Amino acid sequence: MLQLDHHPSGRHFLQIPGPSPVPDRILRAMSLPTIDHRGPEFGALGLKVLAGIGQVFKTRHPVVIYPSSGTGAWEAALANTMSPGDSVLMVETGQFATLWQKMAGRLGLEPDFLALPGIDAETGLALAWRHGVEPQLIEDRLRADAGRRIKAVCVVHNETSTGVTSDIAAVRRAMDAAHHPALLMVDTISGLASADYRHDEWGVDVTIAGSQKGLMLPPGIGFNALSPRALEVSKTARLPRSYWAWDEIVEMNKSGYWPYTPNTNLLYGLSESLDMLLGEGLDRVFQRHQRWAAGVRAAVRAWGLPIQCADPALHSPVLTGVITPQGLDADALRKSIHERFDLSLGTGLGKLKGRMFRIGHLGDSNDLTLIATVAGCEMGLQLAGVPLQGSGVQAAMEHFAKQPLPAA
Amino acid sequence: MLQLDHHPSGRHFLQIPGPSPVPDRILRAMSLPTIDHRGPEFGALGLKVLAGIGQVFKTRHPVVIYPSSGTGAWEAALANTMSPGDSVLMVETGQFATLWQKMAGRLGLEPDFLALPGIDAETGLALAWRHGVEPQLIEDRLRADAGRRIKAVCVVHNETSTGVTSDIAAVRRAMDAAHHPALLMVDTISGLASADYRHDEWGVDVTIAGSQKGLMLPPGIGFNALSPRALEVSKTARLPRSYWAWDEIVEMNKSGYWPYTPNTNLLYGLSESLDMLLGEGLDRVFQRHQRWAAGVRAAVRAWGLPIQCADPALHSPVLTGVITPQGLDADALRKSIHERFDLSLGTGLGKLKGRMFRIGHLGDSNDLTLIATVAGCEMGLQLAGVPLQGSGVQAAMEHFAKQPLPAA
Amino acid sequence: MLQLDHHPSGRHFLQIPGPSPVPDRILRAMSLPTIDHRGPEFGALGLKVLAGIGQVFKTRHPVVIYPSSGTGAWEAALANTMSPGDSVLMVETGQFATLWQKMAGRLGLEPDFLALPGIDAETGLALAWRHGVEPQLIEDRLRADAGRRIKAVCVVHNETSTGVTSDIAAVRRAMDAAHHPALLMVDTISGLASADYRHDEWGVDVTIAGSQKGLMLPPGIGFNALSPRALEVSKTARLPRSYWAWDEIVEMNKSGYWPYTPNTNLLYGLSESLDMLLGEGLDRVFQRHQRWAAGVRAAVRAWGLPIQCADPALHSPVLTGVITPQGLDADALRKSIHERFDLSLGTGLGKLKGRMFRIGHLGDSNDLTLIATVAGCEMGLQLAGVPLQGSGVQAAMEHFAKQPLPAA
Amino acid sequence: MLQLDHHPSGRHFLQIPGPSPVPDRILRAMSLPTIDHRGPEFGALGLKVLAGIGQVFKTRHPVVIYPSSGTGAWEAALANTMSPGDSVLMVETGQFATLWQKMAGRLGLEPDFLALPGIDAETGLALAWRHGVEPQLIEDRLRADAGRRIKAVCVVHNETSTGVTSDIAAVRRAMDAAHHPALLMVDTISGLASADYRHDEWGVDVTIAGSQKGLMLPPGIGFNALSPRALEVSKTARLPRSYWAWDEIVEMNKSGYWPYTPNTNLLYGLSESLDMLLGEGLDRVFQRHQRWAAGVRAAVRAWGLPIQCADPALHSPVLTGVITPQGLDADALRKSIHERFDLSLGTGLGKLKGRMFRIGHLGDSNDLTLIATVAGCEMGLQLAGVPLQGSGVQAAMEHFAKQPLPAA
Repeated sequence: MLQLDHHPSGRHFLQIPGPSPVPDRILRAMSLPTIDHRGPEFGALGLKVLAGIGQVFKTRHPVVIYPSSGTGAWEAALANTMSPGDSVLMVETGQFATLWQKMAGRLGLEPDFLALPGIDAETGLALAWRHGVEPQLIEDRLRADAGRRIKAVCVVHNETSTGVTSDIAAVRRAMDAAHHPALLMVDTISGLASADYRHDEWGVDVTIAGSQKGLMLPPGIGFNALSPRALEVSKTARLPRSYWAWDEIVEMNKSGYWPYTPNTNLLYGLSESLDMLLGEGLDRVFQRHQRWAAGVRAAVRAWGLPIQCADPALHSPVLTGVITPQGLDADALRKSIHERFDLSLGTGLGKLKGRMFRIGHLGDSNDLTLIATVAGCEMGLQLAGVPLQGSGVQAAMEHFAKQPLPAA
Repeated sequence: MLQLDHHPSGRHFLQIPGPSPVPDRILRAMSLPTIDHRGPEFGALGLKVLAGIGQVFKTRHPVVIYPSSGTGAWEAALANTMSPGDSVLMVETGQFATLWQKMAGRLGLEPDFLALPGIDAETGLALAWRHGVEPQLIEDRLRADAGRRIKAVCVVHNETSTGVTSDIAAVRRAMDAAHHPALLMVDTISGLASADYRHDEWGVDVTIAGSQKGLMLPPGIGFNALSPRALEVSKTARLPRSYWAWDEIVEMNKSGYWPYTPNTNLLYGLSESLDMLLGEGLDRVFQRHQRWAAGVRAAVRAWGLPIQCADPALHSPVLTGVITPQGLDADALRKSIHERFDLSLGTGLGKLKGRMFRIGHLGDSNDLTLIATVAGCEMGLQLAGVPLQGSGVQAAMEHFAKQPLPAA
Repeated sequence: MLQLDHHPSGRHFLQIPGPSPVPDRILRAMSLPTIDHRGPEFGALGLKVLAGIGQVFKTRHPVVIYPSSGTGAWEAALANTMSPGDSVLMVETGQFATLWQKMAGRLGLEPDFLALPGIDAETGLALAWRHGVEPQLIEDRLRADAGRRIKAVCVVHNETSTGVTSDIAAVRRAMDAAHHPALLMVDTISGLASADYRHDEWGVDVTIAGSQKGLMLPPGIGFNALSPRALEVSKTARLPRSYWAWDEIVEMNKSGYWPYTPNTNLLYGLSESLDMLLGEGLDRVFQRHQRWAAGVRAAVRAWGLPIQCADPALHSPVLTGVITPQGLDADALRKSIHERFDLSLGTGLGKLKGRMFRIGHLGDSNDLTLIATVAGCEMGLQLAGVPLQGSGVQAAMEHFAKQPLPAA
Repeated sequence: MLQLDHHPSGRHFLQIPGPSPVPDRILRAMSLPTIDHRGPEFGALGLKVLAGIGQVFKTRHPVVIYPSSGTGAWEAALANTMSPGDSVLMVETGQFATLWQKMAGRLGLEPDFLALPGIDAETGLALAWRHGVEPQLIEDRLRADAGRRIKAVCVVHNETSTGVTSDIAAVRRAMDAAHHPALLMVDTISGLASADYRHDEWGVDVTIAGSQKGLMLPPGIGFNALSPRALEVSKTARLPRSYWAWDEIVEMNKSGYWPYTPNTNLLYGLSESLDMLLGEGLDRVFQRHQRWAAGVRAAVRAWGLPIQCADPALHSPVLTGVITPQGLDADALRKSIHERFDLSLGTGLGKLKGRMFRIGHLGDSNDLTLIATVAGCEMGLQLAGVPLQGSGVQAAMEHFAKQPLPAA
């Protein structure tokens, strides 16, 4: 057991933007004995979680649950709907958008990777990585695609690498305005159950998500929420697929079962997670996240450091990217904060490597935990000699003291 | 919590050939808090489990760990090594061989599906489903493949649907005798850590396995053990792949990390499982399984019912298939045993549907649990009006009383 | 962790008459984080378990919950109601009655220890240890106590050392017939929640119980269920007491709290236990135990070995004592069964040492578990060379196959 | 399960001076299946925990482990060594000393309750409750006891109600100086394994402790560490006792067992706790606590509020009492902090009711957790309109940032 628990005394502060801290109730549920995935108890469990997860995605259509990471769910979305050589329109909002685009290439698709051009004057970083999806750019590109070569528009809802939450409804409107038949595929791996999300209302064809963020589960489940059109398109799509194939899964799910062995104990956890989230009410869950995010941003502003997301309307409720001064190695900072204060922060990914750190404020958290997190960052910044304009901890405390969250 | 635990009073007897009962130690380990998969604690965990799992496969080469079911690991093996239209030689030993072959077809390969022809006189069932892989058939087919169109020989080591454990070393010898360059791919999903297995010594190129059988974990991990040749071949194979791609995983595994989020809590369980298995010693683990299997077979013989595996040399140490009399619905029998005695048995799959049930005797078990299992079957058979020649419980007791397992 | 789990592969069979196997639901509930025993959450928990436990004792009066073993609850019953030198009438039904009588002496009371005289011809054992409390003997002794020196009649409801369940209502009738004012104190440590028990209806003044038997919890909680008269008597009783004193506990319990730190995590377990027991319904719980007990006794009769309880009307639903042939060391037998079959049986206590073993069949169990238990005993007896008249396992199977328990 | 977990989202901050937060490792260990307390596995567990706990008390003599709260261990200490009417010299250091003295009275002893006289000018509170045990007062009283009526000196090492840690070695010296044969009994319920303690070296005869503080376990275990002289005295002491009697327990403990059912699952937890504490090393454990205590006191001083313990040499490493301004109801403050920030603080007990709150900083904690705790207090004080001189959070951060704890 010792080998599994390297942390020093006290509770580790896991403040990365996922995996997020797993509530004790979920950990205990997950540790119940594994059952027969073909037995009657399993069918009841299956039907329950399938019904509940649809409420979280806000869809009346099928949600496919994979034993996989979120990365697997990306592949599933593409493999079920695309054919070799298909063009997909993707938007560079950060590292995860970049990785998804790279995956599309590996799968034999032709990604068209839109990005806001240019470098941000304030930070010297790529402008595209400080902003969200520009619907107008999409609309323009689709209008220009007279041959309808573009088969899908693929965007990231909540960019985990930057803390920018794009406006998906606006993307849908742009596609409609262009009268283009491409499918809309959205990655909300780190947004689901933390940021408001509406699969049906927003007209999304495939939504991709994972277990280890707002659902407060360990990693190991990937999701595809489908639209009827996505299901229709999948019938003729020609990328080879078997594990990810929707058809058999959707069919067997009707009775609460899966064609191959699902990951039973994570489904126990999902059942408990759904009880918690739907019991509290999604609206209040979103309020919690907005409150936390505002508190953390107040702290970053007090320090005088730039927030990665440059557009206030798109600030993520899930995480906040903090840009560190040029010359400072943000990863060395993170390492020292980890060693000194047992606090895990998210690293700067891809183009942001060494230039920022990310504070997760999602899932099973609360005001004091986030104040402690801010304090850990602040002490670490001071120890690293970063000049701060003011106390982020005081700013966060003022924010959180202002008024309580309404009772659940 | 109630919803997660539908079983009546007492411990459920989960005697299917996987998922197998998960030991309490492993369930507790899996319920520890999730950590940062990019943090230093994780790297230590990663290196530990990667080193240990190699010992279980008996290989010095890389083992790839996927967040997936075993079915995903099948796909990974094919996707990394094959190109569209490649011919693969597969052998019909039962339902899982059939499903793998079906998958190969879905992925755009051309499976050549060898089977022992004919119907078994005793039972009216397909002969192929009562026997193992015939090395001579493979050798003949490979010799006939002058054009070297066959790129891989794919066989199932322990057929979970029948209880037949084929001789993999003999398959290798047959391939060598034919001087054919095809890769040897072996599914030992339900054999690993219960039946003796030697990836390197037997010259296997890709071994496929899963977590929920001999490793005594819940489902959710798939494995590919590789040979240097498999890694070499993967560099030019052209099936599209990304999630399953070995290259990035093998590279990042060198430091104990993964390119995408691994399923942390199952890796806690794997760490504990490896401590248990390697602590006891694999040889003793195999002895335990042989002892149990012999006891259960003694019971089936006492009943006078046919054992699915017709070849005594290939009896599985993991499960025993029991053929029920024609006219009896084996699934109705299983259902009544489940309802009356809280005992889960494996169903007859594919061509065996309704004609047999399967008793799992693997993993975290012991003599009394198996006697109870046999008793549950015996009472169920009697209540169903099946004439039995004698008492299987008495036979099993005689077997288990004969001599103890040597101390660990 | 390894050090905490010495058992070999598979689930240990804990078939002693307590501690009984703890259900997974209860183990998980007990492992939730400890809370402030003065906080609002605790008060809600306290009120819940106090209300629920009254239903199990079938009383409308206070039940006192101690952080203690059942032995502590014995002491509490005496310390709250007796004064130095008081005479208490106790009845020798076995080892636990003997220990309670010894305790009374240590506390400065004068126990009057009634026993059926004589030696049992069949077994050479004390007659008193094969029979229950004789109400007539009690009535006679009370009638003879003209000076009303006897302050309490203390009897054991379910003698854990013998498997005899005495008739408490008959004891009350005998006391009433004698018009004697002594208090009636009953130990049902191993009977509660397995055997029918009615604190109020039977006119019991203090009922003593513990957590680790029918309540399916680990050891660590002792109970005193009180009558208004017991509370009244406690006001003038003069044995020194502080930890055990009812007054402050009963007063503080009104708001769900305790005067000193209660054992929070066991109370989590108690809460879960009450949900399980009251959810199933006590009548069905008692039915389950009667069914199991009859099955185990059928096995013992088939072996031709004497059942410790010589009076069929008083057979315990909780455990069965099995008398072994003279010349055989029953503890050596138990040890060999433990080593060979990972099965824990109860030892012969006190006057029965080496002459019997006890099979627990209580709490979280089921038919197959008990058949396995009988099989372990049967194999052990055979290996020890004990001549058996027939197969206990067959007899138990016939019993359990006869008809199912009605659905919950 | 829901009923057991009333807390809102995120991890509750349990910052009372016990029960302290229980580490996950210990919660998991405690949830392993209960075993036979008479079986061989139990004996190994018993011997292990008995050996380890002696190291924590720093004694080579027996330590008695009771299924009880710490209150029970007080009673055990008195019941084993005293006779009716014996005089015991006790010292009023706070609420727990007062309760122990009250217990002595209830048990028929004659407590002589020493206290520093007078009222503290700064706070209007009893002087005695802001100071430690005055060895000189004890020496004087013992010298005056020519008739040797005083049989024991009973002091509290770490007063949980005030945060004052008395100097036990000095008490021993005072007793030696007075050449008085009284036993020295010390309550270190809230000190053990957090504050340095040396049973043998300091010449203590009976040390009383509990599980739910520095040992980081849930409540439910009481301890008595004994001296040879205490054991000798117990042979002739005449208070009635049975449950608490040392003789049988010490005798049976030699083989790792107990005369009555011990609380097995808490002993699993104790085993894990000992692995953690002795693995880290007690000296480092004490360093951690001193560091945390200094950080919290820096915060209180920054606020400008009086620390309950008026003697800097006796500041507790376990908790800090904070005196609130007259006119403010400290319990209303605590309640609002609990509701707003999910932070549990200790209440003002006895003479301090409503005038102070207590911050626990013990066991399984770390710097960030304590900064969060201080922040929760600070926001609550501000919301309650308490004028603060400065920011406690800043002071605590400065303290904790100063230098790291040396590596374990």
